[in-house]
Amino acid sequence: MARADGRTPADLRPITIERGWSSQAEGSALISFGGTKVLCTASFTNGVPRWLQGKGTGWVTAEYAMLPRATNDRNDRESVKGKIGGRTHEISRLIGRSLRAIIDLKALGENTIVLDCDVLQADGGTRTAAITGAYVALADSIEWARGRKFIGQKAQPLIDTVAAVSVGIIDGEPMLDLAYVEDVRAETDMNVVATGRGLFVEVQGTAERAPFDRRELDSLLDLALAGTNQLAEFQRAALQSADA
Amino acid sequence: MARADGRTPADLRPITIERGWSSQAEGSALISFGGTKVLCTASFTNGVPRWLQGKGTGWVTAEYAMLPRATNDRNDRESVKGKIGGRTHEISRLIGRSLRAIIDLKALGENTIVLDCDVLQADGGTRTAAITGAYVALADSIEWARGRKFIGQKAQPLIDTVAAVSVGIIDGEPMLDLAYVEDVRAETDMNVVATGRGLFVEVQGTAERAPFDRRELDSLLDLALAGTNQLAEFQRAALQSADA
Amino acid sequence: MARADGRTPADLRPITIERGWSSQAEGSALISFGGTKVLCTASFTNGVPRWLQGKGTGWVTAEYAMLPRATNDRNDRESVKGKIGGRTHEISRLIGRSLRAIIDLKALGENTIVLDCDVLQADGGTRTAAITGAYVALADSIEWARGRKFIGQKAQPLIDTVAAVSVGIIDGEPMLDLAYVEDVRAETDMNVVATGRGLFVEVQGTAERAPFDRRELDSLLDLALAGTNQLAEFQRAALQSADA
Amino acid sequence: MARADGRTPADLRPITIERGWSSQAEGSALISFGGTKVLCTASFTNGVPRWLQGKGTGWVTAEYAMLPRATNDRNDRESVKGKIGGRTHEISRLIGRSLRAIIDLKALGENTIVLDCDVLQADGGTRTAAITGAYVALADSIEWARGRKFIGQKAQPLIDTVAAVSVGIIDGEPMLDLAYVEDVRAETDMNVVATGRGLFVEVQGTAERAPFDRRELDSLLDLALAGTNQLAEFQRAALQSADA
Amino acid sequence: MARADGRTPADLRPITIERGWSSQAEGSALISFGGTKVLCTASFTNGVPRWLQGKGTGWVTAEYAMLPRATNDRNDRESVKGKIGGRTHEISRLIGRSLRAIIDLKALGENTIVLDCDVLQADGGTRTAAITGAYVALADSIEWARGRKFIGQKAQPLIDTVAAVSVGIIDGEPMLDLAYVEDVRAETDMNVVATGRGLFVEVQGTAERAPFDRRELDSLLDLALAGTNQLAEFQRAALQSADA
Amino acid sequence: MARADGRTPADLRPITIERGWSSQAEGSALISFGGTKVLCTASFTNGVPRWLQGKGTGWVTAEYAMLPRATNDRNDRESVKGKIGGRTHEISRLIGRSLRAIIDLKALGENTIVLDCDVLQADGGTRTAAITGAYVALADSIEWARGRKFIGQKAQPLIDTVAAVSVGIIDGEPMLDLAYVEDVRAETDMNVVATGRGLFVEVQGTAERAPFDRRELDSLLDLALAGTNQLAEFQRAALQSADA
Repeated sequence: MARADGRTPADLRPITIERGWSSQAEGSALISFGGTKVLCTASFTNGVPRWLQGKGTGWVTAEYAMLPRATNDRNDRESVKGKIGGRTHEISRLIGRSLRAIIDLKALGENTIVLDCDVLQADGGTRTAAITGAYVALADSIEWARGRKFIGQKAQPLIDTVAAVSVGIIDGEPMLDLAYVEDVRAETDMNVVATGRGLFVEVQGTAERAPFDRRELDSLLDLALAGTNQLAEFQRAALQSADA
Repeated sequence: MARADGRTPADLRPITIERGWSSQAEGSALISFGGTKVLCTASFTNGVPRWLQGKGTGWVTAEYAMLPRATNDRNDRESVKGKIGGRTHEISRLIGRSLRAIIDLKALGENTIVLDCDVLQADGGTRTAAITGAYVALADSIEWARGRKFIGQKAQPLIDTVAAVSVGIIDGEPMLDLAYVEDVRAETDMNVVATGRGLFVEVQGTAERAPFDRRELDSLLDLALAGTNQLAEFQRAALQSADA
Repeated sequence: MARADGRTPADLRPITIERGWSSQAEGSALISFGGTKVLCTASFTNGVPRWLQGKGTGWVTAEYAMLPRATNDRNDRESVKGKIGGRTHEISRLIGRSLRAIIDLKALGENTIVLDCDVLQADGGTRTAAITGAYVALADSIEWARGRKFIGQKAQPLIDTVAAVSVGIIDGEPMLDLAYVEDVRAETDMNVVATGRGLFVEVQGTAERAPFDRRELDSLLDLALAGTNQLAEFQRAALQSADA
Repeated sequence: MARADGRTPADLRPITIERGWSSQAEGSALISFGGTKVLCTASFTNGVPRWLQGKGTGWVTAEYAMLPRATNDRNDRESVKGKIGGRTHEISRLIGRSLRAIIDLKALGENTIVLDCDVLQADGGTRTAAITGAYVALADSIEWARGRKFIGQKAQPLIDTVAAVSVGIIDGEPMLDLAYVEDVRAETDMNVVATGRGLFVEVQGTAERAPFDRRELDSLLDLALAGTNQLAEFQRAALQSADA
Repeated sequence: MARADGRTPADLRPITIERGWSSQAEGSALISFGGTKVLCTASFTNGVPRWLQGKGTGWVTAEYAMLPRATNDRNDRESVKGKIGGRTHEISRLIGRSLRAIIDLKALGENTIVLDCDVLQADGGTRTAAITGAYVALADSIEWARGRKFIGQKAQPLIDTVAAVSVGIIDGEPMLDLAYVEDVRAETDMNVVATGRGLFVEVQGTAERAPFDRRELDSLLDLALAGTNQLAEFQRAALQSADA
Repeated sequence: MARADGRTPADLRPITIERGWSSQAEGSALISFGGTKVLCTASFTNGVPRWLQGKGTGWVTAEYAMLPRATNDRNDRESVKGKIGGRTHEISRLIGRSLRAIIDLKALGENTIVLDCDVLQADGGTRTAAITGAYVALADSIEWARGRKFIGQKAQPLIDTVAAVSVGIIDGEPMLDLAYVEDVRAETDMNVVATGRGLFVEVQGTAERAPFDRRELDSLLDLALAGTNQLAEFQRAALQSADA
């Protein structure tokens, strides 16, 4: 079955990673999953929040947000509304957990890295693009810190890579990396975060229209792992390109 | 391997459901999963929010909260802090989605049901107890509404039952229904929401300490479905007891 | 004149005090005044807020709140609204002042006790039930702290007991402990907080419908003191029962 | 016993009422109780809030606030803190209830009056000065509205006058109208709101240091009623002066 | 062309400065520009905010606000709305910058002065009246601090005086010190803050109706400097009057 | 005198305008003033806010914000802080006023355009780049609306063009378009908004270090008008390029 944009069910959308997009941040990447564009920056600070001081361990956290006109209809700014919505909170927490899963916080030392993932344009899969791009920004910020000796030459804070992709069942068929028009039609929607070694970090499956059975769950997981494997390749390529 | 409270890995904690605990709400249940106690109330209103009016469909939503001293250390009230934390938002949304998955909103008609799940005492698994108890309150509120003819005699808004349970891997072994002391030690933690027919509504697995592989994921899902099956029995028994 | 529930004007509603309801808090009581049920917990912390440090004196404070469906119609959560209403503030302050009136803060030493009074079900007199139950939780938390030597064996932080009751004038007749249906009809409504020795801690009388004269005020005070005397007996009995 | 400012225990401080201070409001008064100065304005609007429409009844409400440097030490603005404190809420509600007690809302018709009481300088008794001054602003706004025919020529929305005063026990002696230096030393502090006919609208007595007995309560009430009687005279005089 | 209140285009409204209006603040002035009345208080504190400690420099800041019924129609309180509007923020910042422009923060030493400018009645030009009055309060608070030796006898923290006035073009004609009825009709509106020596501190011109050319800008600046010169005279006179 | 980046005092930084950057918005531009990059989107809605309905006039408004890591040090998000800072408010209002100055709201008809200006990278002059880019997005959204007949073929809502630039005095010398390192050293800082015809819309000059005289003001205005003239050329070129 062909998809609206001509992909087969197992295809990712065109992926681009513009590493070092920001000249201010210690690490950054402008990542695209088709029409979804997320600017990911890593802010490295020597030192940790008060509650962690003296424990010899670092901290990695993330914040996700969307520009008001990233979407087809304009959304009010959360700063204007004076509060952060549940969805924003949920995704920020997911990104933070995903990155911490592949970081050795002891090896990071008493340093803090904040990942900001701002969606400039949204066309489905913003959280998975954010995680995938944030990993690149994170990796660069660690090398930046190593260059300034905030992290030792032999320390290995990164214990694996991490990427994420969405999968879903549309008209009974499992599909990879849903665009927005597909996402709204999906019966079941799943976000999978996996490491470069193929282990799961997060599996979040939701029956949007109809509960799903074990067999459907299995085929979604197969598709997702194939997708995160490809994304790991894109990350590797971006990080091996000449320094930003 | 015996657990701290003597259970085997596949055992639920003692489950009790005090149906009709509240004399004010249209449906209610005080549910316990061991030391976790959640008061679930269903508030039925004839009519729907403005954005749904005239569409011939109803609305079901949920709010989750914890009393400040439900836990071992006191937490500041979210009302005093002036904002709701990400965890609260996330769980409220999960409960709402879980219940909507087994409701036929057309059959509900233009009626609104709000489920309030307030944790009076917390010992792990508060969100799963909340979903399991909220189903009982929801079912009772629908019968209440049928009695007052807000819902027709033949309408079947409930298309299945729904229950939830946590599973996790501790010291390499998958275990069912984690108590708080287990939860903090788990390498991987998963919440599974499933219908009475054994279909998945939500699967949320998180690598808290170490990413997990496909085999581990499978054994967690097996354990979870066995647990939700038992919980469905407790729900059935509670709803068949004499009217509250 | 008989009341809706068969009481005489000078009768309290059925009073129950479930001491030690919470297994988490240092002291707790689930108190009922008829259909009004309030869960009171005392959280004891060794140490005081910064502004009191080094003054050799302790601190006792209280927070009151109502579950959204404690009442007949559901109220929006204050955490969702993002601010605490005037009524909630007012009652929290009243409870705190009432308990501090019978505490010797010097004898308490540099320790802090926070009383949380959460109304699980509301049928009039929630603030008076909260004060009466909070005293029991407070007393238990002090004995808990004495057992852990945060308070000396001979220190007597409690210098009296304290209880509270509402009184009101309905159809010209003074009545004790108003249920909700009575409260809304009362011309004058008064909350009286008094010690076990019969001294006033707070007297808050309000003309809801018609200003009241001195004679009416006097008969309300008589009725209230008789009520707080009886409540002091219930408190004594609860605290003398086998340890929770 | 002479007081710091030379008054006898039964003396009010110098009282002044500058009626019509504001050229914008429909009624206004700048009232002083000694060093306490409160600007009271009444804003009259034809029409009522949505929840009252079509019921043939009006609405009177009040808001109290203090300028940041009204007091000896500067307080942060509540607008800057982003929330209103419990004390502010409590006093706003007290002022509103006090004025509604002497208003016939049916006779007011579908009109709304908002009383703003802003403390420009604070030296004890700000809430009692606010109530006393607000009555004058309220009365003037009603005459303003009668002049514009929003209220009929024969309608009598004001059924009595209302004034308020503080009393307290200092070193065992009951005293009237406490200045700030007295207020902080008082063992017991009471605010009494009474009508021109000598009936009670509010009685709020608080044991700040030591619980009080019935005899003390009685002498405080005597003192307070004598004080509100004098304040009623000041109000009458202000309202009979040439129009502002 | 005569103006509604009989002034010529180059006339200020009647200006009064009641120095020392507050008995609580270290410096204060109640200033009127016609019907606009602003209470300005200066709160002097020995010490500086944490971020300035140990730098040997002081801090001056300002907050502006309007009473809800300062204007012809009542505005909701910003404390009740829970947030400060853009206009309030903007004016507070302008006042702070204007005063810091004539203060030598080194000579002030590690001291903080907060200027509160509360508009009691508004009839146009509230920000310019606030700046002009705040200077008087500021000057008095510095003398107060010198008297208590928080500032040395020879220190000269004030390096100039500062005043502000509005100008605008109405029906093509430049006019000084616009009253509210003029302000709403102005094609162009400009606020000019200038020192006693005639130097500009702030120039804020806005085309409300029609963009303006260089010649118009020049004539507005001429008018404004003539106005601030006169205001500087009023300030001098107020400060030379017998001590408050 | 050469500047850090080699410019002469009268040079703009390199200016680029990427028109149609967003595929979601009705008009958009990614504009750069050197290292400052601002994404401007125009959201066109048929209809106006309730308070404007039926008046035959449109509405144009703007919101400005900065990504947390647009700057050299990370700033907390305003959405996380729960309130918008004064600077953000001030700039949003400035952008809105600037655009409304060149719009004929009657000719726009009952339509609303919201301009969002999000700073992706900040290196001085973010507000002036925002205004200059917003004009391009605005112009495109109007043509979009004309294409869909929300605006008539002959209607001319745009009555002029508008651009903005900063100027400042550094070491006594007036300079155009300050980069961040220049901005922090400027004695005087001025933002000028002018139309394509060379008329002023806003003139905001602030003495950051030392008050400025009339002659300095004049030379800043000369420099600024030369700058906005050049910016108008860049806008024209962008709008004449092939459609986005």
